[in-house]
Amino acid sequence: MKYCSECGHEVVLKVPPDDHLPRYLCAHCGMIHYQNPKLVVGCVPEWDGKVLLCRRAIDPRMGYWTLPAGFMENNETTEQAAMREAAEEALAEVEILAPLTLVNVPHISQVHLLFRARLRRGQFGIGAETLETALFTESVIPWEDIAFPSVSYTLERFFEDRRHSHYGFHITTWRKTTAP
Amino acid sequence: MKYCSECGHEVVLKVPPDDHLPRYLCAHCGMIHYQNPKLVVGCVPEWDGKVLLCRRAIDPRMGYWTLPAGFMENNETTEQAAMREAAEEALAEVEILAPLTLVNVPHISQVHLLFRARLRRGQFGIGAETLETALFTESVIPWEDIAFPSVSYTLERFFEDRRHSHYGFHITTWRKTTAP
Repeated sequence: MKYCSECGHEVVLKVPPDDHLPRYLCAHCGMIHYQNPKLVVGCVPEWDGKVLLCRRAIDPRMGYWTLPAGFMENNETTEQAAMREAAEEALAEVEILAPLTLVNVPHISQVHLLFRARLRRGQFGIGAETLETALFTESVIPWEDIAFPSVSYTLERFFEDRRHSHYGFHITTWRKTTAP
Repeated sequence: MKYCSECGHEVVLKVPPDDHLPRYLCAHCGMIHYQNPKLVVGCVPEWDGKVLLCRRAIDPRMGYWTLPAGFMENNETTEQAAMREAAEEALAEVEILAPLTLVNVPHISQVHLLFRARLRRGQFGIGAETLETALFTESVIPWEDIAFPSVSYTLERFFEDRRHSHYGFHITTWRKTTAP
């Protein structure tokens, strides 16, 4: 950030009075520009015991497999965000069941939130940001070709919980050293 | 947003190619300025069967009681955010135990995430944004003077789960019609 988005004057990076972190400040209009982590929300769509994965058509990690997920938008709920992403990336209508995992990703200031979901009518397609979409049984999940550690973690928790017939809510932190 | 924060030229609000929502676009440098929901993170600090609440010294809802919580910062985890907010608002050192509630607040583009926590050594104080801090047993919680529906919801779930000796993870949506 170089300019104030409200008045167009240059900003400076400094700690405001009564604060403890540097912020972008506009000396002209007084605006403090806070920057905060973003939520990435998605789901594990299940159908007939299988899980729907999408192969990414865009960077980062183009060509690798992921769960339908993306940046939450203003004025929606996390469930709506998860449903919208499934519709956009996999042309899939999903019923959101329950939150399954939360993954802190502090080195890129993100929080990933994944729900369990049911794929309605078993129907899906290939969205604009997707190369390929497919249903996988646990035994054929392409573990070596999963796009992000938060997706691997979520799939592991999903299958583990399913084996025990009891789904929990799991939280972890993806540290930079484990990033692909 | 009126000006591009990267180059200082005026922005326009329009739907970019391959997108579905209006964004602030800079015709000069091409930057797309996305705006996304913010995470508010906090905890229910428990000590000796009681829960620590803070009376707000700032608006919104000045004078009303809340759990220590606030905007998550870049490059921290949700647990770190909850610990930091307890330290800032109640001068309290807490041990984060598990996520307890997630409250969608779509009308102000927020997501509230509250953890269960243990107050270390039972010590606390009064932070800069707090008028008063106190430990409450369930029977004396000032339900009529709670600052936000997400705080009431979290306290209700906490006491209910504690009665059953089993803590879950609970999700709800705070709609505008129920706002104070």
